[in-house]
Amino acid sequence: MKSWLAIPPRSHFSLHNIPFGVISSKGNPKNRPAIEIGDHVLDLKEFTSRGGFSKADGVQPDQLSAFSQPTLNAFAEFGRPVHRTIRSYLQEIFQEKTLHPEVLKENAALRKAALLPKSEITSHLPFAIGDYTDFFAGRNHAYNVGTLFRGPANALQPNYNHLPVAYHGRASSVVVSGTPLRRPWGQALPGPVATEPVFRPCARLDIELEMGMFVCRPNELGRPISVKDAEEYIFGYVLMNDWSARDIQQWDPWVVLADALEPFRTKGLENEVRLQSYLREERPDNVFDIKLEAALAASGSEETVITRTSAKNLLWSWPQMVAHHSISGCNLRAGDLFGSGTISGSEVGTQGSLLEQSQGGKTPVKLVDGQERKFLQDGDTVVIRGWAGGRDGELVGFGECVGQIMSPTEL
Amino acid sequence: MKSWLAIPPRSHFSLHNIPFGVISSKGNPKNRPAIEIGDHVLDLKEFTSRGGFSKADGVQPDQLSAFSQPTLNAFAEFGRPVHRTIRSYLQEIFQEKTLHPEVLKENAALRKAALLPKSEITSHLPFAIGDYTDFFAGRNHAYNVGTLFRGPANALQPNYNHLPVAYHGRASSVVVSGTPLRRPWGQALPGPVATEPVFRPCARLDIELEMGMFVCRPNELGRPISVKDAEEYIFGYVLMNDWSARDIQQWDPWVVLADALEPFRTKGLENEVRLQSYLREERPDNVFDIKLEAALAASGSEETVITRTSAKNLLWSWPQMVAHHSISGCNLRAGDLFGSGTISGSEVGTQGSLLEQSQGGKTPVKLVDGQERKFLQDGDTVVIRGWAGGRDGELVGFGECVGQIMSPTEL
Repeated sequence: MKSWLAIPPRSHFSLHNIPFGVISSKGNPKNRPAIEIGDHVLDLKEFTSRGGFSKADGVQPDQLSAFSQPTLNAFAEFGRPVHRTIRSYLQEIFQEKTLHPEVLKENAALRKAALLPKSEITSHLPFAIGDYTDFFAGRNHAYNVGTLFRGPANALQPNYNHLPVAYHGRASSVVVSGTPLRRPWGQALPGPVATEPVFRPCARLDIELEMGMFVCRPNELGRPISVKDAEEYIFGYVLMNDWSARDIQQWDPWVVLADALEPFRTKGLENEVRLQSYLREERPDNVFDIKLEAALAASGSEETVITRTSAKNLLWSWPQMVAHHSISGCNLRAGDLFGSGTISGSEVGTQGSLLEQSQGGKTPVKLVDGQERKFLQDGDTVVIRGWAGGRDGELVGFGECVGQIMSPTEL
Repeated sequence: MKSWLAIPPRSHFSLHNIPFGVISSKGNPKNRPAIEIGDHVLDLKEFTSRGGFSKADGVQPDQLSAFSQPTLNAFAEFGRPVHRTIRSYLQEIFQEKTLHPEVLKENAALRKAALLPKSEITSHLPFAIGDYTDFFAGRNHAYNVGTLFRGPANALQPNYNHLPVAYHGRASSVVVSGTPLRRPWGQALPGPVATEPVFRPCARLDIELEMGMFVCRPNELGRPISVKDAEEYIFGYVLMNDWSARDIQQWDPWVVLADALEPFRTKGLENEVRLQSYLREERPDNVFDIKLEAALAASGSEETVITRTSAKNLLWSWPQMVAHHSISGCNLRAGDLFGSGTISGSEVGTQGSLLEQSQGGKTPVKLVDGQERKFLQDGDTVVIRGWAGGRDGELVGFGECVGQIMSPTEL
């Protein structure tokens, strides 16, 4: 797939991707949906109102009205067949040999109005997030951390292989890439034999390299979603840094649609137990081979890539998470966010947290500028990146999720 | 305080109360704010648009525009001084000797338009709930349950007295009184020595008698709220039934404003440890003496009151919960809901869950119709009630939170 638009060769936002997000711009401060392509975004509100979808078969006017909303919730609720139709049409419009050059390729007025350089826009939270649930699906991570706390024989809790364990998180704590993070205050025991806590800024601030998933369809309270139907409830995926000790989730605001990741399916980690029927899947290629990396840069220094891993290191697939989350009758809503939990490989240098890399704070991680880190210091910048595919023009990437640590609030 | 409106003598919604909620009505299906008074509600949208607040000193037009919203979020964000002014004005307007009889008392047209019998309205969720956090502040409950699982010597976890422990809950799971509850499916270990879980409908469905609190003001991410300022972040209170094994919270949709409960302050449970500075309060009367009861009725039978207790059985006050929740820098938003956790006294018949009353399922609770319950059965109806004060005309009550158990979904 080649585009008439100049797309840099290693761009995460090739024609194979077409991620959705929410932008505002210098010329228009109102939040509205957009897609990202190469170094540009296509303002879908402007594109719609100027007839950009006039050649799109099977798209209904009420579906297009979702592009005048300040979030993607309304668009998401139309479901995956509609997302697929819209994404395919937009891919077609941007192709070198588009069947409809008059729509955008040869329409200078619409290009000027709707196709904006990324330097002119600001990205926002794409969804009004109703609820955020953080799973613990990265089995290598669960094993590594369990080993640190309970030794290798009891590393995994007895229920770990039977169901996808999760925590409810705070929707208010989800922020976009670039938002700085203040080191949090909290109570902690000052040493291994202490019984009285002290109150101090967090001494073990850490990253957690995760993937996030946005739900696109609601289910009724009391009506579980079967694992077989669960794919239809998935809008798309983001990179996420679950700052630990803080309960802040930060992520790149462009959502890669579920369909864009279909070519990168692979087999997840083997589960050694026989699953309950509601968690059994037919397809073995139930996770995605998305390359993930985390880099750390001390203030004023170059970055060091401290982790290289893959999103395939999950014991539980996203459909299994959806099925388990709703099996009690819990109602999901469009815009709900699921986190995968920290994703780690099994070797040194593939772990998604400093806790694991430093073996519980014992072995420091070396940085290129000669510094060492057991946990994060004030001024440190963390960058998380993720992409699938890799040959020129085929990259489906997530961009970067960036955050810098600030000193704690003076109390 | 006597009203020109006929208010039944034991009404929970006396002139001393003035709880806020959101209604729709036969004549107007749009959701809008209202107050409840005796057997009536005052439609605040209609009251506002017809000049009902024309005699209210210090109320700004933009504040009144909040009453044309479908939730109380916008009104809540104006803060407690505004809630106080509006509540005082409404109390004045309904007094027998109101200074402004022309506003409502002698204004038949406005009474007809805005003062509706409760039988004509439907109540709705009063807030768009951003996040829901369930605390565990009822120390007797924590002790009772801890004793069942770990024995009396280790009943309370080591951190219990040092900070208000809480769980993040799902905002989507909050439903209004009257919504039936389907028995949930889930995985459970079939016996004490079993290691393989079975998948079945929940066998230990329980009630949890709680209070809920709505937040009215946001704080910025990274900026904690001091315990001294925390009262200004509290809009008001509701009764809540946290159906256990289901993660469904059900509650009466009328919110009693914080100011209405000021006369009922009392001292909470004594904490035996010295608190960290951010949790220390100056006033000893930091909780409310709200009488609480839970009743259970088998299908077709009369109800049995199975619990009588008080909301003063909390180790942690609501301001302490606010301060602790935000100390890490977590941002709260108007409409966030806090649960107290189950409230229990220390004697038999004062416990807020069947788990405690049945001593872990060993001693059944007797009902008036001769039946017994260790946990809830399909068809059972649970009613939770709460009120403060008690002499005629002084009652500040919460109404009823009602729910019936339905059989599980066929899978």
